[in-house]
Amino acid sequence: MLRIITDQGEARQELQRISERTYHENIETQSATVREIIATVKKNGDRALLEYTEKFDGQVIPPEKLKVSGSEIDAAYQQISPDLLQAIKLAATKIEAFHQQRTPKSWVQFAEDNVVLGRRYTPVDRAGLYVPGGRASYPSTVLMNAIPAKVAQVPRIVMVTPPSEGGKINPAVLVAASEAGVTEIYRVGGAQAVAALAYGTETIPRVDVITGPGNIYVTLAKKEVYGRVGIDSLAGPSEVLIIADSQANPVHVAVDLLAQAEHDPMAAAILVTDSELLAQQVQAEVDQQLENHPRRTLTEKAIAHYGVIILTKNLTEAAELSNLFAPEHLELEVESPWDLLEHIRHAGAIFLGNSSPEAVGDYLAGPNHTLPTSGAARYASALGVETFMKYSSIIEYSPSALQKVSKAIIDLTIAEGLPSHGNSVKYRTK
Amino acid sequence: MLRIITDQGEARQELQRISERTYHENIETQSATVREIIATVKKNGDRALLEYTEKFDGQVIPPEKLKVSGSEIDAAYQQISPDLLQAIKLAATKIEAFHQQRTPKSWVQFAEDNVVLGRRYTPVDRAGLYVPGGRASYPSTVLMNAIPAKVAQVPRIVMVTPPSEGGKINPAVLVAASEAGVTEIYRVGGAQAVAALAYGTETIPRVDVITGPGNIYVTLAKKEVYGRVGIDSLAGPSEVLIIADSQANPVHVAVDLLAQAEHDPMAAAILVTDSELLAQQVQAEVDQQLENHPRRTLTEKAIAHYGVIILTKNLTEAAELSNLFAPEHLELEVESPWDLLEHIRHAGAIFLGNSSPEAVGDYLAGPNHTLPTSGAARYASALGVETFMKYSSIIEYSPSALQKVSKAIIDLTIAEGLPSHGNSVKYRTK
Repeated sequence: MLRIITDQGEARQELQRISERTYHENIETQSATVREIIATVKKNGDRALLEYTEKFDGQVIPPEKLKVSGSEIDAAYQQISPDLLQAIKLAATKIEAFHQQRTPKSWVQFAEDNVVLGRRYTPVDRAGLYVPGGRASYPSTVLMNAIPAKVAQVPRIVMVTPPSEGGKINPAVLVAASEAGVTEIYRVGGAQAVAALAYGTETIPRVDVITGPGNIYVTLAKKEVYGRVGIDSLAGPSEVLIIADSQANPVHVAVDLLAQAEHDPMAAAILVTDSELLAQQVQAEVDQQLENHPRRTLTEKAIAHYGVIILTKNLTEAAELSNLFAPEHLELEVESPWDLLEHIRHAGAIFLGNSSPEAVGDYLAGPNHTLPTSGAARYASALGVETFMKYSSIIEYSPSALQKVSKAIIDLTIAEGLPSHGNSVKYRTK
Repeated sequence: MLRIITDQGEARQELQRISERTYHENIETQSATVREIIATVKKNGDRALLEYTEKFDGQVIPPEKLKVSGSEIDAAYQQISPDLLQAIKLAATKIEAFHQQRTPKSWVQFAEDNVVLGRRYTPVDRAGLYVPGGRASYPSTVLMNAIPAKVAQVPRIVMVTPPSEGGKINPAVLVAASEAGVTEIYRVGGAQAVAALAYGTETIPRVDVITGPGNIYVTLAKKEVYGRVGIDSLAGPSEVLIIADSQANPVHVAVDLLAQAEHDPMAAAILVTDSELLAQQVQAEVDQQLENHPRRTLTEKAIAHYGVIILTKNLTEAAELSNLFAPEHLELEVESPWDLLEHIRHAGAIFLGNSSPEAVGDYLAGPNHTLPTSGAARYASALGVETFMKYSSIIEYSPSALQKVSKAIIDLTIAEGLPSHGNSVKYRTK
């Protein structure tokens, strides 16, 4: 049963505990394992990938099967239902349409004395996309990661995903990859797949950016190779914080909390409300909806450990608690969500009103569902087209413009003790 | 003496060696030290900071002196020359003017069925700025890191920098901080300062983003705390790649190479040219300019280890080598720099023509001088206003819009085995 907290000090402590739930005790050991895996892949290439796949995934993959063939992708289209194919296509269309908007564009500014300044945006050469296997093998993950890379016009979009029984890959994932513009798919997962993307092997090309969620080993591997390649973020378990008032429907609030909890035993589901009645109704409703839940054990675990209802005096106080937590997903199921929005400073995605359940954003509203977790919304944003682009600053000075600033530059170079910096201007001016 | 390489295979190998020069042998030991320092600061707060400052910087700082006082900043204004003050002010004005352009703006899109989608940009609450001490204590670093945070309207801009002899801080750095809008300054450096910014101590507030260059311990500490806070990048030693043709002035090319080399014995200075004559002239000119160079030993070391001239058949080939290296700074000292620009895919900042030495961008042209190093320009950009901002995705659906997509969402939730996701839509629609 969801606890109801009324004490604000206790509420803050509880939010901090939940926010930090990703920090494991044995992270050092896991990091050491990951470093060893990366070093081995660097040294042994494909052979290491196949050995780790046998060891960790229990699958023996012949070297020539590492890359998923075109005929396997064609076959996947036959293995999913026409309804699912249509849903994937609809989602892909809506996600692409949203991501096409306000993409970074190069610009220059012509200033006085023939000075030109600006930014020149270009895509990365190669993007690497990690897609988990097993319980979290989701076609929506593929769409949300690959489509921004496609919109960014990345020439090679490389996907890796671990094989399941018989070396198979979820056909819905293969179809989503094909629809989203993935250019090549490899049958490998875990830290070894991240290592392959960062350093390249005989078969898998080295990429420039690695995105996508994964288990703790995948996340630690991404942190380890960060700097060698770019990464989207260090994704932790998912979370929702719902701010609701007395007009909210307790059945809807409860199902939204459970939609988060059913992801993962470490998922967090938090309700903050100024209505004691709603708090009690949601508490009861969550229990009821859990009764016959197909993923009851896992979902109940998340609710028990990382679920909570916080009762506040008013909605402004609720917004402040939310800012403290900086949730991945924030739902505003209140009478005037746009007014309350003014009080929100940090959240990955904000769902306004009673008809905007998180699921609409998870699948097809358009904005990306890959969002900052564990308080990272304090400083980070959703994955986007920007993740796969970067810019070069552009600077063109003229002889007369350089002349005008030469004294100031030389004074600064003297202060910093960098004589050739000064001379590079002095030699070009009088 | 700068070597001249003509073999393209050798050139590629050499560029790779130079690009990877940051990867040390003893990085594991240094990482362990850094993790210990961070854990100690987390546990002991200010006391740990003062102990490490005594141990690593040899300075005993009384607790009440950790924060730099207003009167110390006032005094700094008296300690620098009026010319330097004017140069700092000019640079600050020009950097701020450039960064004010095209800053991220919130937007919403009104789609059919009363759907609202968009992005809402907000600044981080607190920015942390690391400024090195000793040889690399530069006022320009302060301006380039703090001004974007100020333009982003970050309420608290916290600077840390290690004390030198007598607990002093370079007055030009204090003046630059004051001019750039830094709100508080603390006398502490190294990994311990990064730990303080990431976790907070009694005196130093926890921040949301940490930016700024530093030695290997600072860089490793930034990598370690990344995820808990945002960081700008993992800065390596500085580098320039110059593409020049026969019309370039060898004196200018040589001084620009040395301006890079004089930063650091690990700095890299690379010339790629299609002119054998220019290659020879630059080779001779570098030697001559080194003769009486005030930082000769250090600069010569950089030139010897990480300096090279590569001779190519034509400029397109030169551009391809540059793309492979993805330099932090790229100078195009060629007849038609804007034409050559079309062949460039990866570079932190690009300086076009013969009157645009890197120094103009280092100090005051306007674009940021904090740039991706060691090949990171393949996927990353300059530090900017964006570094201190993030957005929340905005999603508002109406009952009728939700109705229209409900079947597609439910089909996807079935494929992904997430029943409450499906129910969150089902319960809200017919």
